[in-house]
Amino acid sequence: MITLTTDFGYQDPYVAEMKGVIFTINPEAKVIDVTHGVGKFDVRMAAFILASVAPYFPKGTIHLAIVDPGVGTQRRSIVVETNAGFLVGPDNGVLILTAKNQGIKHIYQIVNPQSMLSKVSNTFHGRDVFAPAVAYLDKGVPAQEVGPEITDPVTPTYAKVKRTGKTLLGEVLQTDSFGNIITNINRKEVETHKTLKINFPNATLKAVFVQTYSEAKLKEPLALIGSHGFLEIALNQGNAAEKFCVKAGATIKVGSV
Amino acid sequence: MITLTTDFGYQDPYVAEMKGVIFTINPEAKVIDVTHGVGKFDVRMAAFILASVAPYFPKGTIHLAIVDPGVGTQRRSIVVETNAGFLVGPDNGVLILTAKNQGIKHIYQIVNPQSMLSKVSNTFHGRDVFAPAVAYLDKGVPAQEVGPEITDPVTPTYAKVKRTGKTLLGEVLQTDSFGNIITNINRKEVETHKTLKINFPNATLKAVFVQTYSEAKLKEPLALIGSHGFLEIALNQGNAAEKFCVKAGATIKVGSV
Amino acid sequence: MITLTTDFGYQDPYVAEMKGVIFTINPEAKVIDVTHGVGKFDVRMAAFILASVAPYFPKGTIHLAIVDPGVGTQRRSIVVETNAGFLVGPDNGVLILTAKNQGIKHIYQIVNPQSMLSKVSNTFHGRDVFAPAVAYLDKGVPAQEVGPEITDPVTPTYAKVKRTGKTLLGEVLQTDSFGNIITNINRKEVETHKTLKINFPNATLKAVFVQTYSEAKLKEPLALIGSHGFLEIALNQGNAAEKFCVKAGATIKVGSV
Repeated sequence: MITLTTDFGYQDPYVAEMKGVIFTINPEAKVIDVTHGVGKFDVRMAAFILASVAPYFPKGTIHLAIVDPGVGTQRRSIVVETNAGFLVGPDNGVLILTAKNQGIKHIYQIVNPQSMLSKVSNTFHGRDVFAPAVAYLDKGVPAQEVGPEITDPVTPTYAKVKRTGKTLLGEVLQTDSFGNIITNINRKEVETHKTLKINFPNATLKAVFVQTYSEAKLKEPLALIGSHGFLEIALNQGNAAEKFCVKAGATIKVGSV
Repeated sequence: MITLTTDFGYQDPYVAEMKGVIFTINPEAKVIDVTHGVGKFDVRMAAFILASVAPYFPKGTIHLAIVDPGVGTQRRSIVVETNAGFLVGPDNGVLILTAKNQGIKHIYQIVNPQSMLSKVSNTFHGRDVFAPAVAYLDKGVPAQEVGPEITDPVTPTYAKVKRTGKTLLGEVLQTDSFGNIITNINRKEVETHKTLKINFPNATLKAVFVQTYSEAKLKEPLALIGSHGFLEIALNQGNAAEKFCVKAGATIKVGSV
Repeated sequence: MITLTTDFGYQDPYVAEMKGVIFTINPEAKVIDVTHGVGKFDVRMAAFILASVAPYFPKGTIHLAIVDPGVGTQRRSIVVETNAGFLVGPDNGVLILTAKNQGIKHIYQIVNPQSMLSKVSNTFHGRDVFAPAVAYLDKGVPAQEVGPEITDPVTPTYAKVKRTGKTLLGEVLQTDSFGNIITNINRKEVETHKTLKINFPNATLKAVFVQTYSEAKLKEPLALIGSHGFLEIALNQGNAAEKFCVKAGATIKVGSV
């Protein structure tokens, strides 16, 4: 099984070209779209989405993630063999969060022309390099066939939560399409609170700490531990990200009331 | 075959997490996306879409529909066994229109922990409760295994058309992505008219009653019986919903000219 | 294998109704979405996308493309048998670019009621005419069963590039979701240039001619030969179409600096 996570959108021919390449090499492939709606060039958003999704897929799944502002440069193309399956994409950090969660066994750089289309463009490695690579992996070709092992993958440092006295300083990992604000603060940092005092760059609010969205009053702010285990700020049936002008990457300061 | 209808959008990891759960339980599952673009929390829109789509799927299809503002509360999770297959989702009315069309045989409440993931969150029953339920159903596990039969599903009353003299008072069921305005008025209520006089809350217009969009002049209003058998107000190659400021739920008054 | 390219969007029930019809006739069908995000009524955009995608799919693939402002009129529904497979859709030019690229063997008009649903609406031939046609083709029913051969398909003239002295006059084929501006000017017309002077209707700019996006400075304009072999104007990690107010169909004048 192959999954796809990209910033290619739903309007252009790019994703279908990749699927055509995969099915031409491996007509039996099963291809699942995770999303093609990653923010353009937002490597971190793709990394977060892949890390959310991967634990729910069967062992052996091949995840292809492409957000690739450096396409055509010297940035490497890699296959990460983990304890759960394979991760394929550019070596820019998009795979590393999931790779660490799953446990890295080997990382190979894709350089073998036999793992690629015969003609490789400078602008679309999704089609010309990555799609063939996952199709061959899915067919059972060993990962080391793509090229030499490497040991120095690009590893971005994701923001860590800081605690000063009773105040936590974290970061917004993502705002979802409901407007829920997902942070990097985990359950045990906040679970003793009943109400949280929250500072975003452009808003200050109090949020009742609840188990589920509908415990708060309609359109009122709330805090809960979301389905991935992180602190989430939301409105009951409203769009918190819009109301509080919050985007991914924003800081969040959390205090007790 | 399993179909999915949700308001989860195309950007977030939620739909893919559900698919991962389904394929982990049942690697042979065939999963078809109906849409994940239902308006957030718009139970009625999902109900309408599901009822439009279901008649065209093969007998035995399992339809999962999730628009779930009450997730984590006491609202029940249900499996409806009908004469055509299975409908799965929250007990908030999203399934009932289709259930009645297909003929209800039994309704079961999902309470058996063996029908769910081992750890159930308070915020994402799509992944933790509904995805496993449809995967097991698709594998052939009998519906009654999910829990006890119930007989009192939540049943919203959908607006009925009223007639006063020569005037019809109906409601807009949906505006589609072309801007076509789909009402709850059916063919026999209007089929004798040649031109309709229409009142929306913010617009009054005359619309020629035609068989097909291109019979009207370019960008001119028209009325026809749409592909689901209901009166539709449209512009030929234009966006009627935008032009007449109409949204789902708006009233429509129809008179003859 | 069947692919789908439409302007039906991702919110409405239309695409799923088509899939339901296909799977009812042919439960073994493999259906790939190319895109349903073609601009409403934009036949040319669909033609361009289909022509981009088709070369990457396996021999024998059935491509269904529907952008159909003339649905319900006298416009014909056709099956094009080519050297690579089958193209199905309205006879309005949407198929012809790909048909010529693949080599036309026969064109048949769909008129046989046995190739359609038993009840055909005037507004949704995607579901009632085209979906059954591709499902039967995919099952192995010969193409000539749909109806009589025709030899006069609608053939739009796509803009040709003109050269006056050192100046090229071309057209914008498409702007993609990254904002890249894809023109109809091919490699050999411009490959000797180092920097291009470009005129769009609302903007004049100089663009360095590069091999890959990241060779230009961040947010600076560049020109390159894109993944389909045509001249593309872009910004490195920026949206060129937005910045230069360019839409599909706009003229582009290219001179050397």
